Amino acid sequence: MAHPMRRVAVLGSTGSVGTQTLDVVRTFPDRFKIVALSAGRNLELLSQQIDEFNPEYILCEDTDALKYLSGRDCGTLEEMATLPDVDVVMVSTVGSAGLLPTVRAIEAGKMVALANKEVLIMAGEQVMDVSRRNNNQILPVDSEPSAIWQCMLGERDAIRKLIITASGGALRDRSPAELANVSPEEALKHPTWSMGRKITIDSATLVNKAFEVIEAHWLFDMPYEQIEVVVHRQSIVHSMIETADGIVKAHLGSPDMRYPIQYALSHPERFFNPGLKPFDPIEVGSLTFEAMDPKLYPCFELAIDVGRRPGTWGAALMGADEAAVDMFLENRIKFTEIPDVIRGVVVQHAPIDTPNLPTIEEVIQTAEWAYDTARSTVVGSPDQAKSVR
Amino acid sequence: MAHPMRRVAVLGSTGSVGTQTLDVVRTFPDRFKIVALSAGRNLELLSQQIDEFNPEYILCEDTDALKYLSGRDCGTLEEMATLPDVDVVMVSTVGSAGLLPTVRAIEAGKMVALANKEVLIMAGEQVMDVSRRNNNQILPVDSEPSAIWQCMLGERDAIRKLIITASGGALRDRSPAELANVSPEEALKHPTWSMGRKITIDSATLVNKAFEVIEAHWLFDMPYEQIEVVVHRQSIVHSMIETADGIVKAHLGSPDMRYPIQYALSHPERFFNPGLKPFDPIEVGSLTFEAMDPKLYPCFELAIDVGRRPGTWGAALMGADEAAVDMFLENRIKFTEIPDVIRGVVVQHAPIDTPNLPTIEEVIQTAEWAYDTARSTVVGSPDQAKSVR
Repeated sequence: MAHPMRRVAVLGSTGSVGTQTLDVVRTFPDRFKIVALSAGRNLELLSQQIDEFNPEYILCEDTDALKYLSGRDCGTLEEMATLPDVDVVMVSTVGSAGLLPTVRAIEAGKMVALANKEVLIMAGEQVMDVSRRNNNQILPVDSEPSAIWQCMLGERDAIRKLIITASGGALRDRSPAELANVSPEEALKHPTWSMGRKITIDSATLVNKAFEVIEAHWLFDMPYEQIEVVVHRQSIVHSMIETADGIVKAHLGSPDMRYPIQYALSHPERFFNPGLKPFDPIEVGSLTFEAMDPKLYPCFELAIDVGRRPGTWGAALMGADEAAVDMFLENRIKFTEIPDVIRGVVVQHAPIDTPNLPTIEEVIQTAEWAYDTARSTVVGSPDQAKSVR
Repeated sequence: MAHPMRRVAVLGSTGSVGTQTLDVVRTFPDRFKIVALSAGRNLELLSQQIDEFNPEYILCEDTDALKYLSGRDCGTLEEMATLPDVDVVMVSTVGSAGLLPTVRAIEAGKMVALANKEVLIMAGEQVMDVSRRNNNQILPVDSEPSAIWQCMLGERDAIRKLIITASGGALRDRSPAELANVSPEEALKHPTWSMGRKITIDSATLVNKAFEVIEAHWLFDMPYEQIEVVVHRQSIVHSMIETADGIVKAHLGSPDMRYPIQYALSHPERFFNPGLKPFDPIEVGSLTFEAMDPKLYPCFELAIDVGRRPGTWGAALMGADEAAVDMFLENRIKFTEIPDVIRGVVVQHAPIDTPNLPTIEEVIQTAEWAYDTARSTVVGSPDQAKSVR
């Protein structure tokens, strides 16, 4: 049987998920074809990708550079996300960049593979409304929601609980006292996953895990009370579901983002990828589960508390966290000041008072306000870090 | 929405699976109704069950006793398995007793919940032929195949491997030298599961695990080369599947047979059972996986080698093992002589030479021959156990 070739647009092709998406596409040249690539400022890598994958459409932040790259200028990410030639849109942008393209791609009936989880943190209700109205299911790329999605196949109803696993991040074995003096380099050493810088810091604070809880709440229409987080150091069990009758289905595999990326692209089919190492239970030996220590991760509950509020709160959280992480990476604040920065923004946030949901534009503006507000609370050069307390 | 009541016949209602089936039925009086019960010689328990569940049809080995019990004499298990009033047949008999009723129930279009795994050891090819021709899928009740079945929901194609877990049985921490002097009482102390005597000894020898491999081979049409066994002491992961793309789905839960029994009865629905304790990953703490030590379990490879041969070999294996377990429980042979008894029968077995599959009757006769042959190789009273070497 001939398999139809899936034509892929990668929004954010030079980031961690973007490059790994291209690695998957490279492995299956008879299944996937790159039609469009967009990048931010990494022109060198984009240029290499264009040489290799020969996309018809391209986009980058430096519009002058576009003239020197082969491929048609797509104008905007929204246009790229709705190209008639595209079957699958991989949204592997970061921050608020993916929000509008995601909405447009869903409306255009594309398969939307969503790695840019901030889209759902900022506008989960709006995006899921669009998804439902267009009867177009968003395909998760993030490892944990992908695991839940895969465990739910064939189960649909009767899910009692989602159990999301957390490695605990790079600093899981530090005491609360030690955390104050952690350097960006230390916080960037994730014990199990290879990911971008922002998400790696978010993993160390567990903001990333709070984001996944919120993401799972929206993607699977699951009340927050029925979502649990458990610390699982090996990152082998990517998440679990508990069914109505009390059994648990778990999704296991090596911690490699190419697994969920490939499944989002190939779904409902599964392809054998010789480059991926299958999980061997005997080699792994032991899988452990521990309760999360809230003292180690003050950001987790804070992010859940704020992120689950309706309206623009999620966008405020997202912008504040982004600024806090940037400032930590710039040595402007301490690791333990990240929650203080977030709290400092949250107390100032005046949510938009409207009977309707905020618009996408309002949401993006809120995120920008939160980012700027967070940065303005911290003064001084990177070398003269000043406490935000 | 009103749920139709499922009318259940339990063949072998006084055994371990039979009584636990009735426990599940007792929990859901608006979902399941007992229509027929059959037992062997435990008239006292059968009588209690009749008083509680008031079945219309009954059956037991002591035909005189039937006159004193309320309920219509069903004649044979095959008749009970095909009663027009019955929707689900729970085959929780042992040995060869369930073979013909299983075949008849499949042909009659009943939902067939199969706990009596010897049916597939003896006549896997014949029974699966009947299942395919009648487009009537057998519902596994055994914990491991049930786990595989549940993991395969929504996956159908693209399964690369089945990974069956084994607790290692009651004697998993004995050295090969210590095994020679193990008593039946010691071998009957299963570390995790509460089951009947025969299956508990089969768990200690891992014959039971070989039977599950054979059962899974037939139920899921999976080549033996793609079925693995891994020792997992906690009996929380009931089994796993590996998909074509190399991820693993695992089925987890407390080791309680009522889970798979209930799912076989309720499928495709899942009901909340307040009497079952759901799996708590933090309480469990750690799940371990080890390779099986073949020196500890010589019966495993022997049983696989014989059981996977076509024709009457599986029946010979089943009969020989049954006799060996009986003789061990009677103190006639040592625990370490169980494989010798099986081998002694296997070398004498002359498989029926026919271009067709052996008939059900030939299969049952072979099992009886193997049982008798095994017993005749051991002479002497229980108190004068004599080596079979």
